[in-house]
Amino acid sequence: MPEIHAARRGRLQAALADRDADAALITSLVNVRYLTGLASSNAALLVPATGDAVLATDSRYALAADRDCPDLECLTCREVESTLAGLASKRGLRRLAFEAHEMTVERYDALTSVGEIEPRPLGRVVEDLRIVKDDTEIGLLARACEITSSAFDEVVPQIAAGMTERELAVLIDQTMIDAGAEKPAFDTIVASGPNGAIPHHTPSGRPLALGDMITIDCGARHEGYHADMTRTVVLGPPAEWQRDLYALVAAAQRAGIAAAEPGAAVAEVDAAARDVIAEAGHGEHFSHGLGHGVGLEIHEAPMLAHGRPGRLADRVPITVEPGIYVPGRGGIRIEDTLVVRSAAPAAAREMLTTTTTATVRELLVL
Amino acid sequence: MPEIHAARRGRLQAALADRDADAALITSLVNVRYLTGLASSNAALLVPATGDAVLATDSRYALAADRDCPDLECLTCREVESTLAGLASKRGLRRLAFEAHEMTVERYDALTSVGEIEPRPLGRVVEDLRIVKDDTEIGLLARACEITSSAFDEVVPQIAAGMTERELAVLIDQTMIDAGAEKPAFDTIVASGPNGAIPHHTPSGRPLALGDMITIDCGARHEGYHADMTRTVVLGPPAEWQRDLYALVAAAQRAGIAAAEPGAAVAEVDAAARDVIAEAGHGEHFSHGLGHGVGLEIHEAPMLAHGRPGRLADRVPITVEPGIYVPGRGGIRIEDTLVVRSAAPAAAREMLTTTTTATVRELLVL
Repeated sequence: MPEIHAARRGRLQAALADRDADAALITSLVNVRYLTGLASSNAALLVPATGDAVLATDSRYALAADRDCPDLECLTCREVESTLAGLASKRGLRRLAFEAHEMTVERYDALTSVGEIEPRPLGRVVEDLRIVKDDTEIGLLARACEITSSAFDEVVPQIAAGMTERELAVLIDQTMIDAGAEKPAFDTIVASGPNGAIPHHTPSGRPLALGDMITIDCGARHEGYHADMTRTVVLGPPAEWQRDLYALVAAAQRAGIAAAEPGAAVAEVDAAARDVIAEAGHGEHFSHGLGHGVGLEIHEAPMLAHGRPGRLADRVPITVEPGIYVPGRGGIRIEDTLVVRSAAPAAAREMLTTTTTATVRELLVL
Repeated sequence: MPEIHAARRGRLQAALADRDADAALITSLVNVRYLTGLASSNAALLVPATGDAVLATDSRYALAADRDCPDLECLTCREVESTLAGLASKRGLRRLAFEAHEMTVERYDALTSVGEIEPRPLGRVVEDLRIVKDDTEIGLLARACEITSSAFDEVVPQIAAGMTERELAVLIDQTMIDAGAEKPAFDTIVASGPNGAIPHHTPSGRPLALGDMITIDCGARHEGYHADMTRTVVLGPPAEWQRDLYALVAAAQRAGIAAAEPGAAVAEVDAAARDVIAEAGHGEHFSHGLGHGVGLEIHEAPMLAHGRPGRLADRVPITVEPGIYVPGRGGIRIEDTLVVRSAAPAAAREMLTTTTTATVRELLVL
């Protein structure tokens, strides 16, 4: 869909107009993919303030560039950054905005030794453009979430005492791939019993045991787009403290979701969930932000957290994932991916996580 | 093993003596791990030219730092780089060498606004120290290769027509994890039939068919160390061109291995294998370097390729992996991991890839 990518480049050009720059040199590979459709491990894109962009990638990706970017001039070379900087210099595009948050000092030094250019930081302009998704992107994210949810639903009945955390994580990954994922969107987390107190626990050889709460955080990647979901389930009849803690996190998650709508300040969405947990005396046990944007990266803008500026807008996909982590005892996290909406198909928000097995309202007992 | 890491830091301090620097600020996470033993996603290390190093990491890794680095002063903070730069300034360590190949321009700008420091590029000093491995590292690499080889041996009898490339890749990953891998060392490659012509093909939904050559490139990661092996097998009786091409790659691989010994120029090791292929008229079909170092990263120095400077030394682990890729027809690659040695347990080289199923000498027919 070359038109979509051309439209995205047009939005970047509009942003360049305010920036005292003749052109932008895009070197973040995710941003190159966003602006061109090309997935490459060695590519860069020169976007002049007006006129046509030029893509550069090496011979391994030349065929893919022809196929995916038929509307773009594409140079085949190894040194993509200096080639495009040289081209910019030759075309008189001296004031060259570059991605200072991505480029290393070493590559910057090589770049500035090429031709006559006056580099200046572009900032996270493309990352900011990526916050609001178009329909194609939302469709791909929805599919990634659907694959994740159906894999989760298929795995849950197979969870049994004696299985290790690592075995369960591998089973989830394999089921997601069988369900159509191109790969897991991130390293799957399975944290059981006391390990649940570590938000980003690495699955271990610990066997699941009766009475364990098990936190599963997983997601499928589909055509570059990342799903993200978390559920905590319990093996066998739960203790009262487990039920109570779960109800608290579920209430916090509902409050966070209810607050997520176009125009809401991201810090207030975070606060809506956090207040529920803090009022119950567990404020110190909720040690991370409420959620984050998702798309071509698993974590992208906006971050939903205390002290962050900005507001949600129409067509912004986010996660809502409060958690409580009690050292020595265990933890609970509940996470959905949803899209903030101002109009159809949903008012305020559209849920993308579609699991039918472990709904949020009640602790699923296995 | 804190002594090992202290010895490594001592070698870095010796290298600093020639570099007009009061201290090195190490920000490459792999290099921090190499010098301290701490695996963290947010850490940095200040190594003064003389005296004790200071580690910084955030609260998620504070317990691990206490456990793994009991001999090191460790600061717990979020902004690890600026915290250590501030400390360097306070201690009068003004001339601060930093890793320009790793640090972004944005982080560099933040760093230089802290206190009174005079940054200067350190270069790839730690990467160069990492080329020659100590016995602990060779032991971990050997174990990673052993896990890989045994998983491969277990998978080969299960390869059958109808299975897709992706299914075979997932089976390999799962078998490696069952065999003790912490995770795959990289995305497993399964390239069958015409897909074999693409050196880094992504496993697809293509079903394996009788007559296919299948290239499998896989490796296990074990305690941070990466194994790397490739075998090409054939499903059913091979055609003559398949046998001939395989014999050619096998001969090239033997020549490359025979040339790999302490003191050999890396470009000449590459040439030893490349000449065999070029003399048979397939020079243009061998489109990549002969091999690379392996360790805490899957690709590290030295690179064995045409035009590269440098010589092999005692205790340098490398891969030797010639390939022939014929567009439209398919491809063959054979890769072992081995350690260049000047003394026991092996003269010249010690093989770490230990598969017993597909030895190099003959095309394995399934």
